[in-house]
Amino acid sequence: ELRTLLDELHPADLAELLEELEDEQRAAVVQLMSGPTAAEAIAELELEEQAAIVTALPPEKAKAILDEMSADDAADLFAELEPEDAGSLLQLMTQEDATDVRELMTFPEDTAGGIMTTEFVAIGAQRTAADAIDELRRAAPSAETAYYVYVVDEQGRLVGVLSLRELIVAQPDAEIRSIMRTNVVSVHVNDDQEEVARTVQKYNLLAVPVVDDQDVLRGIVTVDDVIDVLEEEATEDIFRAGGVSDAEQQLDLEGPIWPAIRARLPWLLGLLFLSLVSGKVIEGFTPLMDRVTALAIFITTMAGGAGNAATQALTVVVRGLATGEMERDQVGRVVWREARIGIVIGAICGLVLGVTAMVWNHSPWIGLIVGLSIAINLMLAKAAGSLVPVIIQRLGLDPAVASGPFIATITDTTSMLVYFSIAALILGAVL
Amino acid sequence: ELRTLLDELHPADLAELLEELEDEQRAAVVQLMSGPTAAEAIAELELEEQAAIVTALPPEKAKAILDEMSADDAADLFAELEPEDAGSLLQLMTQEDATDVRELMTFPEDTAGGIMTTEFVAIGAQRTAADAIDELRRAAPSAETAYYVYVVDEQGRLVGVLSLRELIVAQPDAEIRSIMRTNVVSVHVNDDQEEVARTVQKYNLLAVPVVDDQDVLRGIVTVDDVIDVLEEEATEDIFRAGGVSDAEQQLDLEGPIWPAIRARLPWLLGLLFLSLVSGKVIEGFTPLMDRVTALAIFITTMAGGAGNAATQALTVVVRGLATGEMERDQVGRVVWREARIGIVIGAICGLVLGVTAMVWNHSPWIGLIVGLSIAINLMLAKAAGSLVPVIIQRLGLDPAVASGPFIATITDTTSMLVYFSIAALILGAVL
Ligand SMILES: [Mg+2]
Ligand SMILES: [Mg+2]
Ligand SMILES: [Mg+2]
Ligand SMILES: [Mg+2]
Ligand SMILES: [Mg+2]
Ligand SMILES: [Mg+2]
Ligand SMILES: [Mg+2]
Ligand SMILES: [Mg+2]
Ligand SMILES: [Mg+2]
Ligand SMILES: [Mg+2]
Ligand SMILES: [Mg+2]
Ligand SMILES: [Mg+2]
Ligand SMILES: [Mg+2]
Repeated sequence: ELRTLLDELHPADLAELLEELEDEQRAAVVQLMSGPTAAEAIAELELEEQAAIVTALPPEKAKAILDEMSADDAADLFAELEPEDAGSLLQLMTQEDATDVRELMTFPEDTAGGIMTTEFVAIGAQRTAADAIDELRRAAPSAETAYYVYVVDEQGRLVGVLSLRELIVAQPDAEIRSIMRTNVVSVHVNDDQEEVARTVQKYNLLAVPVVDDQDVLRGIVTVDDVIDVLEEEATEDIFRAGGVSDAEQQLDLEGPIWPAIRARLPWLLGLLFLSLVSGKVIEGFTPLMDRVTALAIFITTMAGGAGNAATQALTVVVRGLATGEMERDQVGRVVWREARIGIVIGAICGLVLGVTAMVWNHSPWIGLIVGLSIAINLMLAKAAGSLVPVIIQRLGLDPAVASGPFIATITDTTSMLVYFSIAALILGAVL
Repeated sequence: ELRTLLDELHPADLAELLEELEDEQRAAVVQLMSGPTAAEAIAELELEEQAAIVTALPPEKAKAILDEMSADDAADLFAELEPEDAGSLLQLMTQEDATDVRELMTFPEDTAGGIMTTEFVAIGAQRTAADAIDELRRAAPSAETAYYVYVVDEQGRLVGVLSLRELIVAQPDAEIRSIMRTNVVSVHVNDDQEEVARTVQKYNLLAVPVVDDQDVLRGIVTVDDVIDVLEEEATEDIFRAGGVSDAEQQLDLEGPIWPAIRARLPWLLGLLFLSLVSGKVIEGFTPLMDRVTALAIFITTMAGGAGNAATQALTVVVRGLATGEMERDQVGRVVWREARIGIVIGAICGLVLGVTAMVWNHSPWIGLIVGLSIAINLMLAKAAGSLVPVIIQRLGLDPAVASGPFIATITDTTSMLVYFSIAALILGAVL
């Protein structure tokens, strides 16, 4: 009854249902699900929730679920458990599964090793297509891992690949060696997860094999996990661009406020102190402002405009670097293009704002100061916005740390310097 | 020789190679490739480049390539061609392929219909597992489309699905009806492409069937294209967050500057005019600044800090809305949480900056003004940063248009209003 109903629901929908329930109810509902369904549904939950459920279940149910869970998901879950819970649950698993999970737990979580699973089907090159299909039937792999058969030599080194589609259309007695593809796209266990994801994206793969230094096949990364990696990396870049620490990615939007404060305060306070530099520049010109207070009226326009122009250039360049659309040898030409864009945009905005300021203040001199400063500031801002992420990347850091808030705080200073210097020059000649 | 070499390279690598070549060389190299290889490689290029190559090829080669290209890629290519080129190339194709392409071209490009392909394998429920495998062999579908067999009734309505893996482990004489899954996850032809991608991501699918109002199976969207959609949508959101128009997404980072200027100038000029509102606020307080010029020193700190704090909150909320992590019923609680984060962050930053300003200016009053203003401004900024995207979404617009630059320009005004009002109050009592 309820049990069959639960097994007819898709695990991803069951996961959403579990999320709505209280902790005690969760374990009760999971008890009603079959092992495979529960394993898939639980794997879709946050790791904290997974850990809470698995430790609340009676040992035999926990075992039934862990037996069905794919090794990558199990490894992530065990990494989240308290050591004593992890130890006793590992005892319940088969020797083979436990070994796989222990091995996977040794890889850093954002590498190929950290996202790969060990459920792949491998076969020798001297076998036949029919053997390979039998092997697939015997292994009865899970949905995501069944679509390639990898060909390995006696040492377990990856030498070829066959897709399930190719196996089906092959003659049953065809030797694997004669039908396999040998130019196999693979990644290294230590490769960054984003690189792995880009490889799957580029070659339109359903899974990519992961090899070690000896070219031995150690696991595969499946496309469903690649999608999650790309989403995670996009969020990471978006958060950095907004001046929010990566740590906030793990936070619940309705969770306690202290972790969020810890993720944001350092950036914010750091930028506030950095902004005092532009304050220092303004302080240097207070004698001038004592005579012409109207200059203060355009401070926010000047600083805001420069910040916005720089953020635009920065956004385009940081994204280009992240997706690989912009390569190292293009850097010079891209920055030069941004500078030219800045000149034109600066000239247009300078003209429009200059005339506006002139009319507003009934003073051609104020108009000239504002127009000229906007023009120069926007030009500098575009150049800075494109150059800063490139410099940061050359320093070996993620260019995304050159966030909008960071670049806007930097251009606050340059824009004040330009604005008041031009004002001093022009007013010095006039007054 | 060269021809076999080219066919051994992966199409995605060939595409990169083609990108490096001049226009005339491209057609010559494509001539050397086999039809299937060329079709796959060309599909990886930008649409403009695809169109240039196909129109430069002799008709028989163009036909060989178009025959092998999957219908979704062909439809995108034809949409890019000049009408007369499209017409004459469609003539070359088989009646069936041409009909598929014409049909696909009728769907808007960012919907399920616009990204689906018509190469799917469908079968009746009364047939057997062996029949289905034969059908797959006969259709010999391309790599991305071979992993599910869809079950349809006499009217072509989708009634079930079987994965290739399930077919292989099934008894050959088992009736499809008895082994198929009936709770099929599907999308509608008019669904937005991002919704389609989220469905594939949620249910870990390799392809999702697309149905029309009558539930008739019209096509499938494959996971490789879903990955590209997610990347495109992430770039779109990142550009919007940086105050850059979507149009810039299609631009080459080394391309001509005018399209980029057109993509950025409207935002920039609009925000410059919006920033005059904060200038107007400052103008209202020039009599006060005439007496205490030191107030000008903290304008950029005040405006910058508010902009940065708002951008952080905005970033977290906009991303939460985009990924679906934040749902409609959570809005109130999320905004309230941001407000509380703002109160704490405001209090801490206000205290630190207030003391700094006091020491710098040797004035407790300036310290009090700066500290109190920072505290209130950061609090308001967090609330605004989380509330504005929500309001924009309620208006039926993409919350991502509430970009960092936009919110920073808005908070420039509120921060000036708060800062100078507090200054007037405190200095009015003191002076
Ligand atoms: Mg892992
Ligand atoms: Mg791709
Ligand atoms: Mg997995
Ligand atoms: Mg997964
Ligand atoms: Mg990254
Ligand atoms: Mg990373
Ligand atoms: Mg600003
Ligand atoms: Mg299309
Ligand atoms: Mg998923
Ligand atoms: Mg496709
Ligand atoms: Mg594609
Ligand atoms: Mg979107
Ligand atoms: Mg969209």
